Amino acid sequence: VGTTSDHTDRRDRRALLADAAIDLLAEEGMRALTHRAVDTRAALPLGTTSAYFRTRQALLTAIVKRLSDLDREDLRRRGLDLPSQPTGSALTGSEPEQAIPTDLDAVAEATAAFIDLSLSRTRNRALARYHCRMESITQPDLRALLAPHEQAAFRQTRDLLAQHEVPDLDSRARAFVAAVDGLIFERLVGGSPETPGTAENRAELTKTVRALLSGAAAR
Amino acid sequence: VGTTSDHTDRRDRRALLADAAIDLLAEEGMRALTHRAVDTRAALPLGTTSAYFRTRQALLTAIVKRLSDLDREDLRRRGLDLPSQPTGSALTGSEPEQAIPTDLDAVAEATAAFIDLSLSRTRNRALARYHCRMESITQPDLRALLAPHEQAAFRQTRDLLAQHEVPDLDSRARAFVAAVDGLIFERLVGGSPETPGTAENRAELTKTVRALLSGAAAR
Repeated sequence: VGTTSDHTDRRDRRALLADAAIDLLAEEGMRALTHRAVDTRAALPLGTTSAYFRTRQALLTAIVKRLSDLDREDLRRRGLDLPSQPTGSALTGSEPEQAIPTDLDAVAEATAAFIDLSLSRTRNRALARYHCRMESITQPDLRALLAPHEQAAFRQTRDLLAQHEVPDLDSRARAFVAAVDGLIFERLVGGSPETPGTAENRAELTKTVRALLSGAAAR
Repeated sequence: VGTTSDHTDRRDRRALLADAAIDLLAEEGMRALTHRAVDTRAALPLGTTSAYFRTRQALLTAIVKRLSDLDREDLRRRGLDLPSQPTGSALTGSEPEQAIPTDLDAVAEATAAFIDLSLSRTRNRALARYHCRMESITQPDLRALLAPHEQAAFRQTRDLLAQHEVPDLDSRARAFVAAVDGLIFERLVGGSPETPGTAENRAELTKTVRALLSGAAAR
């Protein structure tokens, strides 16, 4: 029993440190991300982060893995009341096998809900992910870790559009995924016309996404 | 004459330092951007960058201003052979008064050419801009400097769509600008299906942008 509980403690500690690193990254940027700053943010003795993640790269890897775990958790939780999160789930990088609704309006709504979430409750995670993606340009290991996530979004969108007999499938799917990505980035950086986390914001986003989707799905 | 030439020297020196900072930012990220690293990259004596831009914020401001100047220069040069760079010019943040072509195919081509350029010849500038935009989330002064640039893209797209009697103008324009932005970001980070800087890449991008634009311009 002791071993199991030690194991659990270690895992919890790692998650706690990764969460602190995500918040630090989101609130103060890549330059502020040091092992010491994570110790402080997590309210743990100096040296703790270094003990768990020896290098900066190990720390960044832990962040990216933690982001995926959190996305998966969210998805599992939402799966109960909102089983149709196709693009959302794709963008959060999980369960490519999940059933995809073919109704474009439902897809637009689910995607808008996902974007709104990224601007409100999971804003820090979204920001941390963009920081890691920027960093991955010069770090092949980080790139390799992020790529499947990005490809899952593309694949799911492609499957959806295929059901609508859309031409130029690859281009169209890539365009839609990039557009959703761009919407999140633009609003994280420059703000939203409506307050994130409200029904107004989701309604505005649904209109916007529907326009994008109708372009992507036009025959 | 001496004063004029001193003035020119100072301006050239500032531009040279800003260019070195842009390359540094693009190639090594926000964490590598220090006054000393810019000195080294510009092959100038240690202390030069500090003499021109005392604080880190002054250096970042110089980078953003230099990015705008370079975009404007490009635009002036291209203006001769390619007078219709509406979204392109908008995204590079210049001359909102420029004539906007109403032909959506021409807009798609010009936008694709602009995206392709951002992935090839002006790649470092595009990367530096994304780094600065990320940084601007926590730096109001930087945000204030970048916002007009972003708004110009939105306004020009809105004007274009207005000529096509498109409904939900604001949402549609915002969606298109964000989508173009997302396409650039995604390809800077994850690579392109075709080699940037080639006719193949521009053709692929034109198809993709046309799909986005037809969604944005649908009545």
